[in-house]
Amino acid sequence: MAALSSSKHCCSSSSVYSSSSSFGFHQPQRNIPFPAVSQKRLGSKSVSWQSKCSPSSNVILMQDGALATKKAAIDEAPPSKLKEGLLSVTLPEEHEQPINFNMNADESTVTITVVGASGDLAKKKIFPALFALYYEDCLPEHFTIFGYARSKMTDAELRNIVSRTLTCRIDKRENCSEKMEQFLSRCFYHSGQYDSQQNFVELDKKLKEHEPNFVASSGWKGCKSTFLLIDPTKHIRRCRKICASLSASAAASGWTRVIVEKPFGRDSDSSAALTRALKQYLEEDQIFRIDHYLGKELVENLSVLRFSNLIFEPLWSRQYIRNVQLIFSEDFGTEGRGGYFDHYGIIRDIMQNHLLQILALFAMETPVSLDAEDIRNEKVKVLRSMKTIRIDDVVIGQYKSHTKGGVSYPGYTDDKTVPKDSLTPTFAAAALFIDNARWDGVPFLMKAGKALHNRRAEIRVQFRHVPGNLYNRNFGTDLDRATNELVIRVQPDEAIYLKINNKVPGLGMRLDRSNLNLLYKARYSKEIPDAYERLLLDAIEGERRLFIRSDELDAAWSLFTPVLKELEEKKIIPEYYPYGSRGPVGAHYLAARYNVKWGDIGVDE
Amino acid sequence: MAALSSSKHCCSSSSVYSSSSSFGFHQPQRNIPFPAVSQKRLGSKSVSWQSKCSPSSNVILMQDGALATKKAAIDEAPPSKLKEGLLSVTLPEEHEQPINFNMNADESTVTITVVGASGDLAKKKIFPALFALYYEDCLPEHFTIFGYARSKMTDAELRNIVSRTLTCRIDKRENCSEKMEQFLSRCFYHSGQYDSQQNFVELDKKLKEHEPNFVASSGWKGCKSTFLLIDPTKHIRRCRKICASLSASAAASGWTRVIVEKPFGRDSDSSAALTRALKQYLEEDQIFRIDHYLGKELVENLSVLRFSNLIFEPLWSRQYIRNVQLIFSEDFGTEGRGGYFDHYGIIRDIMQNHLLQILALFAMETPVSLDAEDIRNEKVKVLRSMKTIRIDDVVIGQYKSHTKGGVSYPGYTDDKTVPKDSLTPTFAAAALFIDNARWDGVPFLMKAGKALHNRRAEIRVQFRHVPGNLYNRNFGTDLDRATNELVIRVQPDEAIYLKINNKVPGLGMRLDRSNLNLLYKARYSKEIPDAYERLLLDAIEGERRLFIRSDELDAAWSLFTPVLKELEEKKIIPEYYPYGSRGPVGAHYLAARYNVKWGDIGVDE
Repeated sequence: MAALSSSKHCCSSSSVYSSSSSFGFHQPQRNIPFPAVSQKRLGSKSVSWQSKCSPSSNVILMQDGALATKKAAIDEAPPSKLKEGLLSVTLPEEHEQPINFNMNADESTVTITVVGASGDLAKKKIFPALFALYYEDCLPEHFTIFGYARSKMTDAELRNIVSRTLTCRIDKRENCSEKMEQFLSRCFYHSGQYDSQQNFVELDKKLKEHEPNFVASSGWKGCKSTFLLIDPTKHIRRCRKICASLSASAAASGWTRVIVEKPFGRDSDSSAALTRALKQYLEEDQIFRIDHYLGKELVENLSVLRFSNLIFEPLWSRQYIRNVQLIFSEDFGTEGRGGYFDHYGIIRDIMQNHLLQILALFAMETPVSLDAEDIRNEKVKVLRSMKTIRIDDVVIGQYKSHTKGGVSYPGYTDDKTVPKDSLTPTFAAAALFIDNARWDGVPFLMKAGKALHNRRAEIRVQFRHVPGNLYNRNFGTDLDRATNELVIRVQPDEAIYLKINNKVPGLGMRLDRSNLNLLYKARYSKEIPDAYERLLLDAIEGERRLFIRSDELDAAWSLFTPVLKELEEKKIIPEYYPYGSRGPVGAHYLAARYNVKWGDIGVDE
Repeated sequence: MAALSSSKHCCSSSSVYSSSSSFGFHQPQRNIPFPAVSQKRLGSKSVSWQSKCSPSSNVILMQDGALATKKAAIDEAPPSKLKEGLLSVTLPEEHEQPINFNMNADESTVTITVVGASGDLAKKKIFPALFALYYEDCLPEHFTIFGYARSKMTDAELRNIVSRTLTCRIDKRENCSEKMEQFLSRCFYHSGQYDSQQNFVELDKKLKEHEPNFVASSGWKGCKSTFLLIDPTKHIRRCRKICASLSASAAASGWTRVIVEKPFGRDSDSSAALTRALKQYLEEDQIFRIDHYLGKELVENLSVLRFSNLIFEPLWSRQYIRNVQLIFSEDFGTEGRGGYFDHYGIIRDIMQNHLLQILALFAMETPVSLDAEDIRNEKVKVLRSMKTIRIDDVVIGQYKSHTKGGVSYPGYTDDKTVPKDSLTPTFAAAALFIDNARWDGVPFLMKAGKALHNRRAEIRVQFRHVPGNLYNRNFGTDLDRATNELVIRVQPDEAIYLKINNKVPGLGMRLDRSNLNLLYKARYSKEIPDAYERLLLDAIEGERRLFIRSDELDAAWSLFTPVLKELEEKKIIPEYYPYGSRGPVGAHYLAARYNVKWGDIGVDE
């Protein structure tokens, strides 16, 4: 609460992640049985509204401007509720201070600018996610959303486009259309060039017009979250211009954050160039690089599983884990949108970011705390401990056309947006190794592909065989293959299951592999939020845990750049596989080299 | 196959458990996916029919007289099937020997005598279990069942009584009534006194009349399994007489086995006396002391779970396990049958045998093999390592009458068969400790009771807290209680589940305890056989793994006798609890003393 004197601003841009001590804890809800425990969102010191985000409505977010919130809470809430919400916050002393500025909980405000608002990602993900956050009362009372793009469009036209993609949560549809109208009335549009400083000054002026009166009267520059949805690698210069404009507009006070979507470069050099461009006008803690896989429910849960369950503690190392598999598959191809993809390929599109990020989270040492920087420090350590990827440990593939059941599926190079002679991999498998005490010798196998037989993202942890297995002598060698396996299915049908050897009920002794199961849809009735909802909220709140820091990105590129270069320079021909198949057999030979079997094959996968 | 020359007998009574090398392995069925593995019944060297027991119809039992089986198999089976069934048996050499006696697979035979055939256990458990074994083709081709009791009865009358309790398996009712008739036609009755040698000689004569011709012509005395269903502790003298008769009748060759039901004494002395009486005429390996809990599916599975799953290997010790709970509850009282119970009480009836046996199986070191003697050796070691039970670590209770919803439930002493001033415990809880390197300091809590709120038998393994729990500082101290727990529910609704801390899906960070679940009825469609089926089949096959050896029994009594004596000598008054309740609160104070919380309470038990 040291920053009280500056609390007329909703947010502060400095040292946001350093103060876990000011977390607003709250007690478990009284109606939840003993083991249920709750927690506020982590590390959020920088927003000024009382978050009503699900799942727990009494989550309280504390930040420098918290007094405003608290005052409102005191005015409105009965004492017991207040106590429950603010348990660890010591109020009395602060209350004795004179409150000499006119603010209340409603004065929290943020302006969200979506640069590239006419694009697909904006329509399909960003606006729906923002609406979901609004619907769940997770946005500040005063928020304004500005779409920005080159196309000419009126506010009404933007609203019309956006309205078509909004949906209401399955579990509470009440007042949905009303909420939708309210949301759309906060959406505006401004047309401009991405590299015109003049256009951004105009935008800034418009933003100010929509700020609440108290902001203007206080000379406040406003809090801004800006989503950069233009390809930043392709448009480094534009990014720099935008950052310069944003930086200038928010210079004196308030904050501005820039949320950047991938691709973050094509290799170490281009990534470094982009980072330099961003950092010319922004601080590290203003840059939010989105990897939307980090926002997936089960990726978020990975650390919870590992660090809050003793049973996994002794198992999480080379001593018990034989290999780890990170699997991503899509059951469709580029389908006429291959232009972007062909420039990057599956390794850059999926492996170097999504799968590698999951790997780092999985393999990291226990962080000092759950604070963003502590976690990101550990992730960087994993990436920096990794062995250079050998080209022999990479298999690439490309899908070709396939006719099945009378339906013809096009090959990758049949896509008109793709060069006929493209060697860009649409499939890749790789074996990676972490050269540290915990993971030495454990293969981390990655596999990612388009136009495969199913859609799936999962982490599979295969354990070693039971040493001196008593049942072995009676069952033959197969039991050594029937090892335990922990599967964390990220999508679809989120689930965690642990394959165990079990006696088949009945007379006699026959073993099978059964699952200890946690199927999310059976256990949790609540709809799982889209990854973007979580990430957008985090970005607005200034929580960096799930975003990629510059040095993480550097390390990730250092790992993949040499092998990517070699593949391209040597013009390695990908192994062709039919659309809708399980991908190139080369992936199996790669696994076999390390005495591993992919876990996503077989009847009981 | 060394005993070929004596293989005209179906069975041999000597050194049955010494030769695991002659196990008949068989390959996994080809239509079972990779991880499914099968095994023959363990350690069965002593029966001569091809077991067709579920779940795998190609389980082959090997024993000294196996040649007969094999010959029949060769005659009937196509070569490929034979190979599958007899994979590890080397046939050629044996086949070159002249087969100079006229036998085939149909010549396997056994006579089963049920002493105490008019009693409840015979009607409710033994005959139905024998029928189920017959129905599943697990009995030899030639079997005869003789009921023996004091009541006068004809064969027809016995069949009539028995027929009322037989049921067909849910999963295959075909030909059931036909099978039932066939089974009943093999059931006979002989009336006699339990201590009359003359009556047993008459029985023996009758048995011979029902033996197949080839048995008589070979001078074979027959293979006999005798179920002693009379209270052996009360009738030591009768047991001795019966054993003498059996021993005499089977003297020259064949074998006789005696399956004895509890109670095996009331304390160390009476137990030793019973053992002496049995051993006067029988060898240790002819005595099969039944503890029907050892025949329960999930108790059988305990060793499979533990020894064929690497994930449990590092967890199974004081380093990770905080406490183990063995819980038994019945939701009914003695209901007019308190006479027997009052003489023993719940500690002798449930704890000293069933729960202690499970404890020993749970806690034992890895045996050298799965052979009966190796397992029993390890169990004895556990029992002998246990600390003397202090009276302070025992809580006893007795249920009193209770009226609920207008229905009045009688107290224990309201039972007319129970003395009004009885202090016999109908509930007990105890804390036990194993003084060895693996379990030092880990409380093993037992709880058993009648007339409680539910019917349940389960093993609960509570793990320690996560050291340096990252989530602790944000969730308060409660998380230390939300430790992992492995639950093995023996009955009803067999299940295994592992409680884990999990992130509740949604924005924000809230943890709950969810289960990784394996509910048997959801996973396995097959009906789970009654414990008696497994045990009877084992006894007939000579498999001793699930029966209690004399030294095990001695050790079990050594543990409980002192505290039982003390309770009785001091006339400790039991804590009274209402019929249908959760039992005396004393059990909670006992648990609290060791910083434990019973796992079977709470909403998410």
